[in-house]
Amino acid sequence: MFSEIITIGDELLIGQTIDTNSAWIAKQLNNIGISVRQITSIADSKEHIFETLDSAIKSSELVLITGGLGPTDDDITKKTLTEYFDTELITNLDVLKDVKNFIEKRSLKYNKRNIEQAKVPKNCNVIRNENGTAAGMWFSKNDTVIISMPAVPFEMKAMMTEKIIPLLEQHFNTSNVIHKTIQTFGISESSLAEQLSQWKEQLPKSLKLAYLPSPERMQLRLSCVSENKNDGKKNIDNEIEKLKKIIGEAIFGYGNVFLHEAIGDILIDKQETLAVAESCTGGNISRLITSVSGSSKYFIGGVVAYSNDIKEQILGVKKDTLIKHGAVSKQTVIEMANGIRRLYGSDYAISVSGIAGPGGSRDGKPVGTTWIAVAYAEKTVAKKYIFGKQRDINIRIASSKALDMLRRLMI
Amino acid sequence: MFSEIITIGDELLIGQTIDTNSAWIAKQLNNIGISVRQITSIADSKEHIFETLDSAIKSSELVLITGGLGPTDDDITKKTLTEYFDTELITNLDVLKDVKNFIEKRSLKYNKRNIEQAKVPKNCNVIRNENGTAAGMWFSKNDTVIISMPAVPFEMKAMMTEKIIPLLEQHFNTSNVIHKTIQTFGISESSLAEQLSQWKEQLPKSLKLAYLPSPERMQLRLSCVSENKNDGKKNIDNEIEKLKKIIGEAIFGYGNVFLHEAIGDILIDKQETLAVAESCTGGNISRLITSVSGSSKYFIGGVVAYSNDIKEQILGVKKDTLIKHGAVSKQTVIEMANGIRRLYGSDYAISVSGIAGPGGSRDGKPVGTTWIAVAYAEKTVAKKYIFGKQRDINIRIASSKALDMLRRLMI
Repeated sequence: MFSEIITIGDELLIGQTIDTNSAWIAKQLNNIGISVRQITSIADSKEHIFETLDSAIKSSELVLITGGLGPTDDDITKKTLTEYFDTELITNLDVLKDVKNFIEKRSLKYNKRNIEQAKVPKNCNVIRNENGTAAGMWFSKNDTVIISMPAVPFEMKAMMTEKIIPLLEQHFNTSNVIHKTIQTFGISESSLAEQLSQWKEQLPKSLKLAYLPSPERMQLRLSCVSENKNDGKKNIDNEIEKLKKIIGEAIFGYGNVFLHEAIGDILIDKQETLAVAESCTGGNISRLITSVSGSSKYFIGGVVAYSNDIKEQILGVKKDTLIKHGAVSKQTVIEMANGIRRLYGSDYAISVSGIAGPGGSRDGKPVGTTWIAVAYAEKTVAKKYIFGKQRDINIRIASSKALDMLRRLMI
Repeated sequence: MFSEIITIGDELLIGQTIDTNSAWIAKQLNNIGISVRQITSIADSKEHIFETLDSAIKSSELVLITGGLGPTDDDITKKTLTEYFDTELITNLDVLKDVKNFIEKRSLKYNKRNIEQAKVPKNCNVIRNENGTAAGMWFSKNDTVIISMPAVPFEMKAMMTEKIIPLLEQHFNTSNVIHKTIQTFGISESSLAEQLSQWKEQLPKSLKLAYLPSPERMQLRLSCVSENKNDGKKNIDNEIEKLKKIIGEAIFGYGNVFLHEAIGDILIDKQETLAVAESCTGGNISRLITSVSGSSKYFIGGVVAYSNDIKEQILGVKKDTLIKHGAVSKQTVIEMANGIRRLYGSDYAISVSGIAGPGGSRDGKPVGTTWIAVAYAEKTVAKKYIFGKQRDINIRIASSKALDMLRRLMI
């Protein structure tokens, strides 16, 4: 069966807000076997909402809407849906209670806008919101279910996970498409296409392969349509075994996993610890590692050594090294890695020093030049990379390369 | 005039990739006075691409497409456009040269897939790509311009900025909608709606106000439609002057600026420096500060003190303080802030210690409890917050609160 997602808000169309909700919603729907055929973002405009709903209801059995439910006047979704489904707004006592509770728990002031939030269209089923003041609404038209949700990500996510997904599983029969994602790092897209061309040729017809490159990882996705899900799963697992023989070392995980998560798992297995010394990545590697709940088990901490003084005084890089070789050099990153390992008493250490750009080319080294070292006991490995000219991309790629160097040292 | 954006790729519809391109493109179009009426994401499916193009060409004078131009077989956009515009693929010598140059510069291997990349539909105008192997394509149908671009963000962005935007400015007349964004922090959405209700009532009819909340900032956007752009600008500036009198302290900037950027500007003005000691934010504050090009002028560096040992041994927090008050306490963050200021010799310092969650509630302190301190000379301010239960949101809000506390101390 097919579904569509409609996100409503002027901010999406002037580029002020990136629509992160749709991808998240699409993933949840796919997990329960509901395909998404289209995602549409439109403005807070009654005519355009009507037109988009007409078209979505014609092609899909499920339409999920986010946005336009806030307490301010620019939000028109609730009013528009009331008109679209030819009904009226009435105060819902459950919602009124939720709104009051929510306001009181946060010691906020209850105002007349909050009372408006408790009004809902008469002919919808209310989906209660425990994390905010805008209720969800479930409508039906012809054979299509239309659901409206708030756009604030954590309100929407809690509502989807706890309420809507179970209701959808009850209401619809799910199909038999299965996806499995293989996470790799260190091989470029076109090189991967070459290395995997023979394997790809022999894939059963029911299997589809897609590549998804990014600075953090190269994802391969295998999809399988089959009569029953177990067969699909077997087909995919069978092909992954063959894949491992071709690009095994580059594979660091399956499903929506990142390098910093994979590294955490390895460190927990080994019961060993990590510390990080960052210059050009400016704290990004530490941030990635600590984004994982429970990372305090293996991550001791880091030093962001943005100035040379800190490299010298805190990490113990020799003045002589900095003068002779510069801050972006093999010698410096090796001394940084050994320095942080000694200082923080960790088993492993990562260090990075580079020219993130867009300015800052020096000592005959172009923007993008980056040295990375990883250290463990007596073993220290250092490597030089030359990335591009975009600061944000360079920081992201340097962080991924560093994490992958550590991973390869550990396996 | 109106435009539409179409993003093509299965990965968007199964939620594997967030469509960040559309927001960026929409912003560029709005900047040159082209409104976006709809953003549509669809799968790599010929029928659906045809159908979406038909509908977009009917309602808009400009259609921008990204995606499906990669070297692998799952990418069908070029083939599909060739069929849609009833033409054939021919090798373009300029593109062939670009592809060869690109491959050689990166010491990658040139393969037959790369030669395929040099083929383009006969009846399009080629837009050359200096950052990748997929060329852009400019088509016309009826009175609509249709442009296809690669989906890799930095390739698309360079192509838009350097080639497409100037071509569009030439080709179209721009309209007279003006937006101005006011960045605020520290007042909640519904409280803001109350404080600004009178001011909002008296706004001229040509002005529209929208609120855009996020953990990083609360954006207010004023839009004005007027006969000429100068009048619109004057109207908006006039209202902003009134706004300043109501919520002046909460305003930290205009346009697409973030707290970490605003702070950088203040520090450059003052010619003073900053260092950061982070526990629960795990490097995120350092990362934000160093994401700004030129931040080495005022940012000395940071310490990520994830373990208590590091708080004690590196930052000099007293053992007694940690035992008596715990790591998440007023005393600890004050000693952390003073410690990093002394150690790094900075003028200002920020420190954060909290329970990011979802687990880790301790000493009777619930998940989300966070202490933040900012220090300058003899002045140290510390404040306690209780955020929610979501780790990523808590880290983002704690980072923003810390940056805003520093900003308010500096102004």
